[in-house]
Formats: sequence, structure tokens, C-alpha cells
Amino acid sequence: MASMMMFADCQSSSTAYRLPPLRRHGLFHLRRPASFLLGPTNLTFPRTTITHTASPLPCLITAAMTTEASAKVIDGKSVAKEIRDEITAEIYRMKHSIGVAPGLAVILVGDRKDSATYVRNKKKACESVGINSYEVCLPEDSTEQEVLKYISTFNDDPSVHGILVQLPLPLHMNEQNILNAVCIEKDVDGFHPLNIGRLAMRGREPLFVPCTPKGCIELLHTHGVSIKGKRAVVIGRSNIVGMPAALLLQREDATVSIVHSRTKKPEEISKQADIIIAAVGQPNMVRGNWIKPGAVIIDVGINPVEDAKSPRGYRLVGDVCYEEACKIASAITPVPGGVGPMTIAMLLSNTLISAKRIHNFK
Amino acid sequence: MASMMMFADCQSSSTAYRLPPLRRHGLFHLRRPASFLLGPTNLTFPRTTITHTASPLPCLITAAMTTEASAKVIDGKSVAKEIRDEITAEIYRMKHSIGVAPGLAVILVGDRKDSATYVRNKKKACESVGINSYEVCLPEDSTEQEVLKYISTFNDDPSVHGILVQLPLPLHMNEQNILNAVCIEKDVDGFHPLNIGRLAMRGREPLFVPCTPKGCIELLHTHGVSIKGKRAVVIGRSNIVGMPAALLLQREDATVSIVHSRTKKPEEISKQADIIIAAVGQPNMVRGNWIKPGAVIIDVGINPVEDAKSPRGYRLVGDVCYEEACKIASAITPVPGGVGPMTIAMLLSNTLISAKRIHNFK
Repeated sequence: MASMMMFADCQSSSTAYRLPPLRRHGLFHLRRPASFLLGPTNLTFPRTTITHTASPLPCLITAAMTTEASAKVIDGKSVAKEIRDEITAEIYRMKHSIGVAPGLAVILVGDRKDSATYVRNKKKACESVGINSYEVCLPEDSTEQEVLKYISTFNDDPSVHGILVQLPLPLHMNEQNILNAVCIEKDVDGFHPLNIGRLAMRGREPLFVPCTPKGCIELLHTHGVSIKGKRAVVIGRSNIVGMPAALLLQREDATVSIVHSRTKKPEEISKQADIIIAAVGQPNMVRGNWIKPGAVIIDVGINPVEDAKSPRGYRLVGDVCYEEACKIASAITPVPGGVGPMTIAMLLSNTLISAKRIHNFK
Repeated sequence: MASMMMFADCQSSSTAYRLPPLRRHGLFHLRRPASFLLGPTNLTFPRTTITHTASPLPCLITAAMTTEASAKVIDGKSVAKEIRDEITAEIYRMKHSIGVAPGLAVILVGDRKDSATYVRNKKKACESVGINSYEVCLPEDSTEQEVLKYISTFNDDPSVHGILVQLPLPLHMNEQNILNAVCIEKDVDGFHPLNIGRLAMRGREPLFVPCTPKGCIELLHTHGVSIKGKRAVVIGRSNIVGMPAALLLQREDATVSIVHSRTKKPEEISKQADIIIAAVGQPNMVRGNWIKPGAVIIDVGINPVEDAKSPRGYRLVGDVCYEEACKIASAITPVPGGVGPMTIAMLLSNTLISAKRIHNFK
């Protein structure tokens, strides 16, 4: 099991869809436990982009097979759309009440095309809900000091409520130093160890919950999946998804096991789970025999695999073998269109939460 | 399963014993992963002290039954003694090299007898290894501000390298505010969320690891128990033992599950474990049918149960039913004399580590 994370950074959504349980409090997070107040968005698309078909793909989707599917599809696009609509309405209310709009600053270093795309998408998403976005693009050979200077400027800027450093940074920079420099009140990625510590501790509340795990839990909530007392298995233990997802599940009284690259017979553990969150970056790793009948599956992986039939030459698959899983699970997120769209929605949510907290806007 | 923690605060040891694997680097922690560098000691004895025999005790030790025991006894007293001897030698070296001795400040608020006993024991333990101890005893009706003032004084005092606020504090005080005021470089209890966050995150190192979980892992190491790739179950999810113990086991590549009061059929999960750390505060809760043959058991619980035969009227038992477990497990810590003596040894260790770090003494 590779430890490298292979998730799309974020995805926008424009699908119109009405959720059955209407949100009643203006903004979705208002009816959530107070712990869901922060998150990360720097889940970068891997450099090692495409899995070649020469390496055996564990499962292949065929039309014949998918007709047997019984699992409910957890539609992340529609949930994300709903959340963004609510954020838009809340920002409108905020602007008209106190004359303040949330602001998100994004710092991009270097010229990675994927990073540039993600930053562009975040900017567009901000615009779409009424968040002011500030962007700094620095050349690849910038110094750590230059990045730190901009972080310091944004830390002090009252119009900026969230600061996001697009990862990965160039190799000559110390990522830890740079992320630690973001003041915790504006750490909308939720990557700061103080936030993670508060997430881990009973009786403490993080300022922000990392975006992707927050999006996973939000999908479970929205789809009425009960977490308390359930067996949950998180596959992968990254700082940005697996570990905080496990902490979040535990905060909601699940009995959590974490499966990782050193786990022996992971399928035996996974098969005991009522809820599986797969976040390991291995295409189709979780097979049908890993899944308990009726389990709910949140698939965070977005892995490109070679596909000659696709105009792009590849298609995206999750960490879970969908066509096997959808016959066994009771509900499953598709890839793409599952967790992906939730990540950026949670970033927008965290930025709004930050602005409301800073301005004490209820 | 009750969530209340019922552990002895700490126990001193005077048993002379030579460990088979001799410590080669002068101080035990030098051969440990750098993550093992901090910890808590405020595991207070419960107010609800004695379980009456009227409530059925799940298991009773009899001479006849214990003769069938096959498990190796993990002798915490002897390991703690060894560690304290090494700490004594290291402090001697430090004093003679740079003229500095580590200093530990303890703040005690109120007149709880058990807390006074723990503080006295800590003071004695400090004296026995050459750590200077500073003690502040404040009346029960002190204000939070008064406590914070002393913390601030100790934060600024260069002769103090560790600060410990004896818990529990009087109910009118905000424990979180007070613990957060201890500067992280002197937080030898390891309770600060920044330390916990670093403990949870891969690639980060806490300044201090909470003492009791650190002692548990130390016992596994000392007894040659392999952790990597093993199934570990932690019973209990407290901030001071269960949760950090799970994080520590995960850092050592165990596959960890956390069992707690909301877990259904905990015995089924526990029975899969190669390593069990029980830290829940329920006398004899973990029965023989919870244990996989050959498992290693670390029993953190120290629960007083009524015993008419004892001169004190009670005796101490663990969370694990010892006489059943010792026939099934391959190794087990006794209660008392297992984890208890390790907690204060780890506090002394953390204080020394802090002094060495502050003075850059190698």
C-alpha cells in the first residue's frame, strides 16, 4: 500500500439538485457539532499521474456489471452545490449586515500546471459565492523568506480571513516552517498542529477542520448515515485526510481502526467496518471482499488510470473498486463526483466561518 | 464502560533489579525514536475510591487459580528503577559538565489528600535523582489569576525546566486556560494541544510525550515486544492516556483500534489484538474472553476494590482480570507494580529532556 496521497485538489460543481432534508438554519454548519469548523484543501494531484494498463488493474467497469449495483450513490456534486448556495446566501447576509465580505488569500510558488489549475479553481469558486480572493504567484526560485513575508502581510491584513499556501512547495523550502507561519485564526486548511491537537482531544474544539475529512463527514451527515457506535475503518493515515478523518469519526463516537501500509491482512479489518473511508491513493485497492454487506463507503482517492477510449487517454478511478463495491455496500461515493467537490466547498465554508468569527457575526 | 479515569497518579519504586538488555547510551531515551520526548503525570486517584464487593466483582484472584498462570510478568517497578538510575547518572553528568540541574515546579491548589500525596511523591522522586523541585501550594479558594501568576513566574524562571499543575483543580477554575498557560517548552506533562497535534502528525515531533502512555510504550520496548505491523487495541480514549497511547502505537506502525464506552461488542475487537492497552478505570473489565492467546497486555487501570482481608480494607486491581488474563496472555503488567511506577519515571525523564534541550546539553 503506497503512502503517497493521490487526491484531486478540489473540484467545482454546477449540478443543480435539491437535497431531501432541507437545510433550515441558513448555513449548513450551524446545525453541525462545533468541532466541524476547519479544513485542508492542498490535496495535490500526483506528479505520477497515470497508472498504465500494463500493470494489472484490479477491476474494470463494464456496463453489464454495473447493472447489478444496489448501493445508493452519495452524490458529492449535489451536496457541494447545496452548501455553496447556502454559503452564497450567508455571505450576502453578512455583506448587507456589517459590510464585510470574507477574504481568502492563496499563495502559489512555482509553475506547476496542476497547482495553477487548482488555484484558478479556488479563485473561481470564491468569486461564485462572494468571497474576495487574493492571489500571490511567486517564481519557483523564490526564497522561504519571501513566502514568509507574504504570509506575514496576510496575517496582518484585516480583509483576509483565510490563508492558503498551495502545496507542494518547491523542494528547497521547508513546508513545516511555512505552514506554521500562517496564524491559526486564518489557517483555513486546518493543517496547524494546534488545530490537529484540538481535534484529537476530548473537550477541545479546533478552529478549523481539514477540508477533505470535513467533507467526508458532511457527506455521511447529509445522507443520514449514523456514526455513533459504528465500526469505522479509515484506510490511509495521511496528515491531511486519513488521520484527521479518523479523529473526526472518533469525535462522533465511532469505533475507529486505521489501516495503513504496515497493516497485515487489511481486508479482514476493513470487512468489519460499517463505514469505510478510503484515502490511500491506490487505484481500485479496496475490493469487494474488503467490504461488509451494507457498509457505507467514502472514497477519497482520485487516481488516473490509462484508458485508450477516453479522449484524454486516461480516466479517474477511486481507491475502491466501484463496480464490485456498489453491489455490496449500501451507499458509496462515486469517483469523480463524490468527495472531490466537497473539498472546495469546505474551504469556502471554513473561510466564511473564519470571517464570521473574526467579526463576531452570528 | 465508564469514561471516568481511575489511575493512580504515580508510584515510586525501590526494587533493585537488573534488566536483561543493558541500556547502552547512558540515558534510555537516547535510543528511543525522537517522538518519545514528553508526557502527563496528573492521573489522579478517583474521588469514588472503593468498589464495594456488594457489586459483583467479575473475577477474584485465588492462590489455586494463579498457579496456572503462564504469562510473563512485565515488572514496571524494576524498569522504572533502572530508568531512574540512568536519569540520576545523566543529571550527575550534566551538573558536572555545565553546572545546571533540572528543575521541576509543581503547583498544587486545594487540600485534597490524594493530590498532596502525589505532589509529595513527585518531590521525593525529584530529590532522589537530583532534580530541583519547586512547590507552590495554594488554598482551595484561590483565583485562576493567582494560579496563572505562578505559572507565568515559572515560565520565566530559567532554573525551572518543567511545570506541572496537579489535577484536578478546584471546580471554579478553568483547567484548559490554566494548562494552556504553561509554556510549551516546559509542558513536561505533554498535555498541550500543540504537543498532541505534533504527536498525531506524521513528520512532526512533540516536545514531550504524555508520561503514562510513554511509560506503556517504554515497557513494550524494554520487554522486546515488537509493535510494527501488530494489531493494537487501546481500551479508553482519555486525553491523558488512551488517545495519546493510540497515537504512539500508530507512530510505531501498529494497526490501532480504539475501544470506548460507545463501542459495541468490545470483546470482539479486543480479542483481535496482539497488544492491549487498557486504560478505562473499570476494575477487572477485560476478561479472559477479550484476549487473544499470546497477546501482550498493558494494564493502566488502578482501581481500589473492597477487601476485608486487607489492613486498609481495600486492594488495588487493574482494568484487566489478572488471574484470567495471565493464563492467556504472553505477557502482562501487574497492578500495582506495572504501569504505575513508570509514570513518575517518565515525568523525571521529561524534566531532564527539557533541561537538556533548553541548555543544549548533549
